[in-house]
Amino acid sequence: MDIEQYMLQVGARARAAARQLAAASTRAKNQALNAMAQAVRARAQTILDANAADVAAARANGLDDAMLDRLTLGARSVEQMAQGLEQVAMLPDPVGEMGDFKRRPSGILVGKMRVPLGVVGIIYEARPNVTADAAALCLKSGNAAILRGGSEALRSNQAIAACVAEGLRAAQLPAAAVQVLETTDRAAVGVLVAMPQYVDVIVPRGGKGLIERISREARVPVIKHLDGNCHVYVDEFAHPDKALAIAVNAKTQRYGTCNTMESLLLHAAVAEALLPRLAAIYLEKGVELRGCAAARALVPQMHEATESDWYTEYLAPILAVRIVPDLAAAIDHIETYGSHHTDAIVTENHSHAMRFIAAVDSASVMVNASTRFADGFEYGLGAEIGISTDKVHARGPVGLEGLTSQKWVVFGNGEIRG
Amino acid sequence: MDIEQYMLQVGARARAAARQLAAASTRAKNQALNAMAQAVRARAQTILDANAADVAAARANGLDDAMLDRLTLGARSVEQMAQGLEQVAMLPDPVGEMGDFKRRPSGILVGKMRVPLGVVGIIYEARPNVTADAAALCLKSGNAAILRGGSEALRSNQAIAACVAEGLRAAQLPAAAVQVLETTDRAAVGVLVAMPQYVDVIVPRGGKGLIERISREARVPVIKHLDGNCHVYVDEFAHPDKALAIAVNAKTQRYGTCNTMESLLLHAAVAEALLPRLAAIYLEKGVELRGCAAARALVPQMHEATESDWYTEYLAPILAVRIVPDLAAAIDHIETYGSHHTDAIVTENHSHAMRFIAAVDSASVMVNASTRFADGFEYGLGAEIGISTDKVHARGPVGLEGLTSQKWVVFGNGEIRG
Repeated sequence: MDIEQYMLQVGARARAAARQLAAASTRAKNQALNAMAQAVRARAQTILDANAADVAAARANGLDDAMLDRLTLGARSVEQMAQGLEQVAMLPDPVGEMGDFKRRPSGILVGKMRVPLGVVGIIYEARPNVTADAAALCLKSGNAAILRGGSEALRSNQAIAACVAEGLRAAQLPAAAVQVLETTDRAAVGVLVAMPQYVDVIVPRGGKGLIERISREARVPVIKHLDGNCHVYVDEFAHPDKALAIAVNAKTQRYGTCNTMESLLLHAAVAEALLPRLAAIYLEKGVELRGCAAARALVPQMHEATESDWYTEYLAPILAVRIVPDLAAAIDHIETYGSHHTDAIVTENHSHAMRFIAAVDSASVMVNASTRFADGFEYGLGAEIGISTDKVHARGPVGLEGLTSQKWVVFGNGEIRG
Repeated sequence: MDIEQYMLQVGARARAAARQLAAASTRAKNQALNAMAQAVRARAQTILDANAADVAAARANGLDDAMLDRLTLGARSVEQMAQGLEQVAMLPDPVGEMGDFKRRPSGILVGKMRVPLGVVGIIYEARPNVTADAAALCLKSGNAAILRGGSEALRSNQAIAACVAEGLRAAQLPAAAVQVLETTDRAAVGVLVAMPQYVDVIVPRGGKGLIERISREARVPVIKHLDGNCHVYVDEFAHPDKALAIAVNAKTQRYGTCNTMESLLLHAAVAEALLPRLAAIYLEKGVELRGCAAARALVPQMHEATESDWYTEYLAPILAVRIVPDLAAAIDHIETYGSHHTDAIVTENHSHAMRFIAAVDSASVMVNASTRFADGFEYGLGAEIGISTDKVHARGPVGLEGLTSQKWVVFGNGEIRG
């Protein structure tokens, strides 16, 4: 197969489909999504068989346990996939929403309309459920999608793609509305991210290596997620019960997620009362603690933290702990070492809370809440295509709105410029 | 001078200043802007002398008339620069605006806050007034700015930079809030657009060659403006007076601007009545007409349009004219040949108007108004840093809001994720 030729054909088909999709009715898009859900349920066994073959091959190829875990589908995850498609069908259609019309001195009325971006390229690794999720979000937002999953999930992705295609057919939407690449040749990614005539935005989902490679090679905008090095700062005016609950939840509710706390900062005035209690809970749960000298003085079982610990996204039961003299030092630490993903303060002091949320330059800033809430579902987006650590376009969890842009609409009555 | 070393220092200083600026009060920013305006007025003669030297050198170097025109400042343009600074001071400060807070089932309140992007790099050509305009918009939106003007305007830009620096000093804001590069070495641009650790977004303003080079080399997001190949479509249900007024204004009010109409599309049913009248006005104003066969049958003085005419942004008194059988053909033409900048329909038919604004994928779509209105001032943004033809982040005229992004804010009361 000539990869470049193939990709250019995929791109041209996506561009043509995007024009039809931008004008597709909400009813047709929802019909397609519900038909996809039906197809996923009807073909559940086919999907599971394909997935079992992928998992067996991956195991033979020596994939690690975490990758195998992400790759493996069960009856429950297939049903969740179907439900996810139905949930996207129930979300409001953002396309065509208009607002903010203002009368200008010239007489014209100027406002904005929400429209699809056009063609979205999504590059992802092991998780096959991304195929259904991404197809659904792109379709609902009126975008054509080009999906490129990992080679280890090819059979699973093709089985899910067949359900997506069936749904599109049922609603008489173009087959090229969602194209799942038939190749896992790495060269295809290089072409996909460098054809601005056919692709409007790239969303990579996967490890840091994948995302850095794509950012380097892309000739179109990339909505990307790099590190999640998240912090909780327990202020001197923190309510101790809230501090304990949040610090424990943010670290231990799940270890491998990007919104998990990786460093805990405590104001010196509360460290003595809180840190030993917290440390006991962490140690009981098997969390390794690495701290500054002041923290280690309070918790003998704590290891010494090195400079590199403050930068690290562990994605594991390890926590860095630092005692800071004041709010300014906490903000400085977060701005110096953080990844601008999600950071929280625990405080009862209003001015401290407001200063924290203004000064911490992260996609999500929180007061008295667990960093684990930084998530499209928890924020009410209905679903998410990813979490952006970029500053332009979309920051934080990206849902349907992040897959659209706003154009200007002018209503006149024959006005001309003088 | 070691250009890379110099640029990295500029970048580091900008990054440090950006943190201070993000927290600067509206009062301080406005004080700086008003002091800059005062300095521009006080040093008007110095600016004019520097500009005269630039113009003389440019003339000696054989710059063309259009470039000389853009480079030349007069007493009036210096006063306009001062007024522009004062106008930006009067605009509402977008930084810290919060809204859309919604209560989620978990109990958290989720909303958004508007924040600066960080460091904005602006690369521009001849016009020295961009130095003041860009500095003002970046400062008001809380961003540090790195400005790189054209070599032909170096003396003018340095004179204006001195006024900007004076304003920053008066308000005790960091000098590095606005840095005007002291070098016009082209290598500096290459470094500026490829240091994501220090620069968050690049705004190039200039010819297509400059913008294409920057898009190719940039390793950070670019808010860019490429072509303005704008259309007016006169529908079969157009009011003839509005059609005449808009078609004449969109082409002839100014020839060299990006929102000037370059192609006129007429429905076949109205061409016979309207085109000869319109052509008479255009020809009287010295506009060269290039049309399809049907248009030439109605206007003998019209030249033959070739395929390449439909793609061309003339920026000159030349107009392409095509007669189309229906609205769908007009939309097809615009989507095939247009540049997605600004396109207008003239019609009294509501359904045609709504179909046009939904189907034409341009940054600005208009009903019964001249394309010349596509402009930050006319849209009520107060000022503009440029007009974007991109789809992500900002489309069309970009004002203060386009220099900011929104982060998520979560207000909790000790909530944890279950």
